[in-house]
Amino acid sequence: MDELLRRLRAGLPAEALITDPDVTPSYAADMAGLCPAGTPAVVVLPRTVDQVRHVMRTATALRVPVVPQGARTGLSGAANATDGCIVLSLVRMDRILEVNPVDRTAVVEPGVVNAALSRAVAEHGLYYPPDPSSWETCTIGGNIGTASGGLCCVKYGVTAEYVLGLDVVLADGRLLTTGRRTAKGVAGYDLTRLFVGSEGTLGIVVRAVLALRPKPPAGLVLAAEFASTAEACAAVCAIMERGHTPSLLELMDRTTVRAVDRLGHMGLPHTTAALLLVAFDTPEPAADLAAVGELCTAAGATQVVPADDPAESELLLQARRMSLPALETLAPATMIDDVCVPRSRLADMLDGTAAIARTYGLTIGVCAHAGDGNTHPVVCFDPADADEARRARESFDAIMALGLELGGTITGEHGVGLLKKEWLARELGPVGLELQRGIKRTFDPLNLLNPGKLF
Amino acid sequence: MDELLRRLRAGLPAEALITDPDVTPSYAADMAGLCPAGTPAVVVLPRTVDQVRHVMRTATALRVPVVPQGARTGLSGAANATDGCIVLSLVRMDRILEVNPVDRTAVVEPGVVNAALSRAVAEHGLYYPPDPSSWETCTIGGNIGTASGGLCCVKYGVTAEYVLGLDVVLADGRLLTTGRRTAKGVAGYDLTRLFVGSEGTLGIVVRAVLALRPKPPAGLVLAAEFASTAEACAAVCAIMERGHTPSLLELMDRTTVRAVDRLGHMGLPHTTAALLLVAFDTPEPAADLAAVGELCTAAGATQVVPADDPAESELLLQARRMSLPALETLAPATMIDDVCVPRSRLADMLDGTAAIARTYGLTIGVCAHAGDGNTHPVVCFDPADADEARRARESFDAIMALGLELGGTITGEHGVGLLKKEWLARELGPVGLELQRGIKRTFDPLNLLNPGKLF
Repeated sequence: MDELLRRLRAGLPAEALITDPDVTPSYAADMAGLCPAGTPAVVVLPRTVDQVRHVMRTATALRVPVVPQGARTGLSGAANATDGCIVLSLVRMDRILEVNPVDRTAVVEPGVVNAALSRAVAEHGLYYPPDPSSWETCTIGGNIGTASGGLCCVKYGVTAEYVLGLDVVLADGRLLTTGRRTAKGVAGYDLTRLFVGSEGTLGIVVRAVLALRPKPPAGLVLAAEFASTAEACAAVCAIMERGHTPSLLELMDRTTVRAVDRLGHMGLPHTTAALLLVAFDTPEPAADLAAVGELCTAAGATQVVPADDPAESELLLQARRMSLPALETLAPATMIDDVCVPRSRLADMLDGTAAIARTYGLTIGVCAHAGDGNTHPVVCFDPADADEARRARESFDAIMALGLELGGTITGEHGVGLLKKEWLARELGPVGLELQRGIKRTFDPLNLLNPGKLF
Repeated sequence: MDELLRRLRAGLPAEALITDPDVTPSYAADMAGLCPAGTPAVVVLPRTVDQVRHVMRTATALRVPVVPQGARTGLSGAANATDGCIVLSLVRMDRILEVNPVDRTAVVEPGVVNAALSRAVAEHGLYYPPDPSSWETCTIGGNIGTASGGLCCVKYGVTAEYVLGLDVVLADGRLLTTGRRTAKGVAGYDLTRLFVGSEGTLGIVVRAVLALRPKPPAGLVLAAEFASTAEACAAVCAIMERGHTPSLLELMDRTTVRAVDRLGHMGLPHTTAALLLVAFDTPEPAADLAAVGELCTAAGATQVVPADDPAESELLLQARRMSLPALETLAPATMIDDVCVPRSRLADMLDGTAAIARTYGLTIGVCAHAGDGNTHPVVCFDPADADEARRARESFDAIMALGLELGGTITGEHGVGLLKKEWLARELGPVGLELQRGIKRTFDPLNLLNPGKLF
């Protein structure tokens, strides 16, 4: 421990190290519940690539594990400390190094906050689509580590599709540059993509070249109420089958609608079994909304309310954004699932989740990126009640099992971390798992980078 | 050899093997010039996954290299045989197993021809964007192996963005399933993406889940003539900077325009130094073309001709599609480069290429996916003239060096194969190359899969 600190200090300014045992535990965990977190030996907050390299060289020399962190808004425990580790927080490397409107690229450090990047590129008429709920606080490095999604994905895709190239400090301190600054490029294996979603287990991202898009027009939102989730899901299928490209296609189930209304007093009808929100950011969104409204009515919508202007649209989106906080008011604790199924199986996923809630005698509210088939069932429970906590965990697992059974995946956008390690093994199977481990060994033979995460 | 054939025959129907030494050499090479090709021991044409697994188990047991092939339309020698290898041609595995308009996915075998898939999904109102020039003959498996591009990329991206999941037979015959059938998914390292562009060096793709899009409206094309490539490139930059999203943005230089006109008698003016083709497949393409036409004029276009209807548009596209065949008429042989630069450096790339042509005393015509910054300089030469052949090779290399100097890549969409191995090493650098080799060893420890390609 003394040796570790002595060596770290040799290449870092004093203000880059936190060793105060009253402070370091506050860096021990991300926002996932029920995941174990150890006590870090030291928290390091570098400002330069060279400082990161020094940390990794030191960690390798002394065989000390390193847990990289962004803003710790993750939901799978991927940023949780292990005992005696170096927590490597990248939040101070927060410079936007370049924004190029012709190339439609930005070059950023990992600690740049998602919203800060979005605002900076908007000044150039550009748009960085990935928009996790935590976008006001989460960092681009964290987004890359967990391959974040958001509300935008149905039209604009996930973080992975916006990462063109990376500078990465490897476990032994060497610097790797992957990918490109160009619109296209196929030189060798796609190492860039390998780092996206690798949860800090392969290297430390210290710089990223990101693709940008032209800023779309402001969107217009429609709300449609249904008397059953099956009808709402049928509307989702019809919308996609007819070739529409909404910029947002979200679903909130009855439990979520009620919770949001109780928290926000928004006048949402408690009789609604499923609320669908559909947005278009096309040049003529009203026409698109009208067409989609008809499909919703045909699928059985009890009410269809297109917003007249951006202010009304914003109000509807607020309801959606309030879903998680609202569900969190229903019980002392929540666990949020992240199962993504083929959208043709969305109705089965929602019905099955409702059945699981009944079986385990729990409240489970679902909000979903319905256009992607990505559901977020939120299990509400009291951890002080041992039996309820057990049922919560079992229902959480039952939801993942159902997702796999329906041809889906255990994680659409939140990642694996500590929370879903066993499930990752089930989803990948033994051959896939073996190859994933082989890749890990290639990049980090001493297993120092975020050990114990993923698998 | 006898042992190899005996073992292969044990798990394959007789018609799946070609051993006739008059026939096997016709499978020895793809369409790249100047790349060495060996003599295969046997050509195998399996129809099932089990047959592929049998081939790989046999190859592993006897330590025989395997060269996987699609339609051999590749341009980098990645499908070239090595002496004594098994050529594993996937062209008979050509079934489209599923097309799902709600999920917007297709499940296909690797031997499906790109155009066949495009037509099949069009019947469902769907669109498979990747459109390499060879789309009428090239296979999806080959497209995946080389991470193909095409004219669509400026709006719709490359093959990699459409591959959601894969079934892969590994070197030892084990079957690996990667990725997903869902719109999103982040479970573990992205092995799917690792296979895209891996040129058959990591495993044999035997099934692919592909993402589809709604079929866009028919496009409308505009042609703009410029008196200099610099002005044409300035127009490209202006179009992209103003936030336009053309479905096609192509450039042909003077040499290409003249060659096309000589071949096709299309009435293209020989005074044009650069011809820009811009298409939109938006609901109102005429308005978009008008806006872009103004940008071209402002950048110095000598003439701007928007097509009035799809038939006129098709005629303009024909000129672009004729570029390579036309340039091939200028000399006994050609070498086609594939350098992609940031689009803000496109003018430097074209001017630099013209300077290289002068320095080496060669005709080099350039057609470019200008919107992507992806240039295809075509070096025209006579291989019978040793000095000219040497100059051709040197100019080809000088063009790649220029691309790297401008922050670009040696390959935007054609891949590395045998042709650019040395250049891949230069682009990746020693750390990147070492990690790429480590990944290769993880998947193929005996180095049996397409050995000698990439690196």
